[in-house]
Amino acid sequence: MMRAYLDYNATTPVDREVLEAMAPYFAENYGNASSIHSEGQRARSAVDHARESVAALLGATPAEIVFTSGGTEADNLAILGVAAACGERKHIITTTIEHHAVLHSCQALETRGCEVTYVPIGESGIVDPDAIQRSLRPETILISVMHANNELGTIQPIEEIGRIAAEADVYFHCDAVQSAGKLLLNVDRPGVDLLSISAHKIYGPKGVGALYVRSGTPLEPQFHGGRHERDRRPGTENVHGIVGLGKAAELARVNLATDAARLAALRDRLEAALLAEIPCMRVNGDTAHRVSNTTNLTFAAAGGEALLIALDLQGVACSTGAACSSGAVEPSHVLLAMGLSPDAARSSLRFSLGRPTTAEEIDHAIRVIPAVVERLRALSPLAASVVPAH
Amino acid sequence: MMRAYLDYNATTPVDREVLEAMAPYFAENYGNASSIHSEGQRARSAVDHARESVAALLGATPAEIVFTSGGTEADNLAILGVAAACGERKHIITTTIEHHAVLHSCQALETRGCEVTYVPIGESGIVDPDAIQRSLRPETILISVMHANNELGTIQPIEEIGRIAAEADVYFHCDAVQSAGKLLLNVDRPGVDLLSISAHKIYGPKGVGALYVRSGTPLEPQFHGGRHERDRRPGTENVHGIVGLGKAAELARVNLATDAARLAALRDRLEAALLAEIPCMRVNGDTAHRVSNTTNLTFAAAGGEALLIALDLQGVACSTGAACSSGAVEPSHVLLAMGLSPDAARSSLRFSLGRPTTAEEIDHAIRVIPAVVERLRALSPLAASVVPAH
Repeated sequence: MMRAYLDYNATTPVDREVLEAMAPYFAENYGNASSIHSEGQRARSAVDHARESVAALLGATPAEIVFTSGGTEADNLAILGVAAACGERKHIITTTIEHHAVLHSCQALETRGCEVTYVPIGESGIVDPDAIQRSLRPETILISVMHANNELGTIQPIEEIGRIAAEADVYFHCDAVQSAGKLLLNVDRPGVDLLSISAHKIYGPKGVGALYVRSGTPLEPQFHGGRHERDRRPGTENVHGIVGLGKAAELARVNLATDAARLAALRDRLEAALLAEIPCMRVNGDTAHRVSNTTNLTFAAAGGEALLIALDLQGVACSTGAACSSGAVEPSHVLLAMGLSPDAARSSLRFSLGRPTTAEEIDHAIRVIPAVVERLRALSPLAASVVPAH
Repeated sequence: MMRAYLDYNATTPVDREVLEAMAPYFAENYGNASSIHSEGQRARSAVDHARESVAALLGATPAEIVFTSGGTEADNLAILGVAAACGERKHIITTTIEHHAVLHSCQALETRGCEVTYVPIGESGIVDPDAIQRSLRPETILISVMHANNELGTIQPIEEIGRIAAEADVYFHCDAVQSAGKLLLNVDRPGVDLLSISAHKIYGPKGVGALYVRSGTPLEPQFHGGRHERDRRPGTENVHGIVGLGKAAELARVNLATDAARLAALRDRLEAALLAEIPCMRVNGDTAHRVSNTTNLTFAAAGGEALLIALDLQGVACSTGAACSSGAVEPSHVLLAMGLSPDAARSSLRFSLGRPTTAEEIDHAIRVIPAVVERLRALSPLAASVVPAH
């Protein structure tokens, strides 16, 4: 059966070129990058090269890159690390649609006496920079706003926020896990002080990410151990993972424009076809300010989880965007924050395209989705009241 | 030129079978293990299988295994996690020869008001259980003692310490990063509550490790984000890394006895030949209670770092065991803790053998090392006062 994997915002396959770059670092050049001998120095040189590639993707210098175990650790290190380094003056501004790695780090700081303002978001799924500005206090130390939202794809006004942060002399952290490889990134343009990326969202391996830390930004490490990563993150360097992230960053720069144009066309075709065929379906978030690969759709009265499972059986993989790793499906905090009802949020699916996505896969999705939605609505007691007969 | 890599305690190459097990999880079965669809479920199933293999190596149940980014994170999670969960009663007992991941985690807790006893170690390199017993206080929450020391290979009396901890109703963490695959491990025999392992020390990939957490042990996660690993460690699962750790754990069980016997014979031959050929050389630590693959040698007046570099050029890779990741070489804290002078500690090298080590490599090391030591001593102003002419 034809299969359309449309969940690239959850994770991506490792690119063939990335895997080729990593391959020598498992069994041949296996040295510990902190060892002095030749085996160690070969590993060190590979890590250095990868650091340069990641820095180049972000417009940073290599010394400003800290390798981590992924986006979650990068977000934690940024938020907890700056808060720990900033002593007493403690207020943080973030938004209600950040990733849980950011939101839960902020909540953890609240239990330690830090105050946090969670700026609300309207149905555009885009934060209002004025609301950030109004939330500033003398004791504000950090603003954390993502670049592109993982569930909606909406692009946040990080240049304005960067200016606001700079004027207020407040550090600015940007979670760019979902925009790396999709939007141009240059840490100097929006005036970002800290920026998180993850390899497995850009066709690199799982288990590795990076935090950009602008030179001079105070940061307390969150682990303790060896003196790796210039005393910012201890632990034997994940050499093959770092090499993979470096290569993925290189490919992201090369492919960005082509990927974006091609995926936007496919995504728009999918969206238009579904809007034409499925009654009572809506697109969530500001469609004019989105990354090119993402669409988030509410299928009233179809039931997101059941829909996801039925689509999976028909060869379409997508996501509810819900916190499901515990087994219990909670409605998406992003959709709730935008004002959707819990029922509407639970009836929403995210489709996210990627570099390997083909026109045939989109055709397949367009064939399958309307029929599955109709079938599930036929089983739903809610459907009659929501969806007009057609 | 013949090359003898004798630094397996620093890191190991990924075993061919481990790499084969990992291979499908980069570009084919690339799903996010927290996704509900088929791609996600295939990844989930691979993670579950690996969890069973790791649990089997340790005599644990799968639910007691938390995957981490490596040994350093596992040690941090154990020590900081138990301390954070234990509220006010705050005293920890550890030893002066633990890995920096343990020592620096304890030091971080001291800055937060926790008291720590660092039990001193004599020249045996083995902690006296009575000294642990005598350090107990009513407010002691945790004892952290490693299984095998990374620099000396000395085996710590963890069964006695486990009994002491159990009688005192104190949690017991064991850093088993250097004993996994070398010594039999069963978390029930020594009564361990938390135990750290790292994949890249047992022919698995870098960037992944695990913490065993006995069911019922209080533990605060040290990262915040998704609900992965039963709310104990958030972040997208490093599926290929976890699969690699699982396979490495499986192979460690199978190969343990054979590896140990063969490597002990090779290590003992190396040690005996060097003792016979090199005047004023000593073996550090209790040679009767060591893992089979490690020897730590002091070459008076030869200069460890210069010796290491000269040996590397002659095709022998070993380690000073010193904190060198910052560029500045400090003498080994383990050797200093045992009572060696800074000069003696700086003139010491660790040789550690591994599964791929051959008799020919050991022959090569035996040929090369005495000549290099003699040459460096000839250049040393100290040598005349230390080494008798021969």
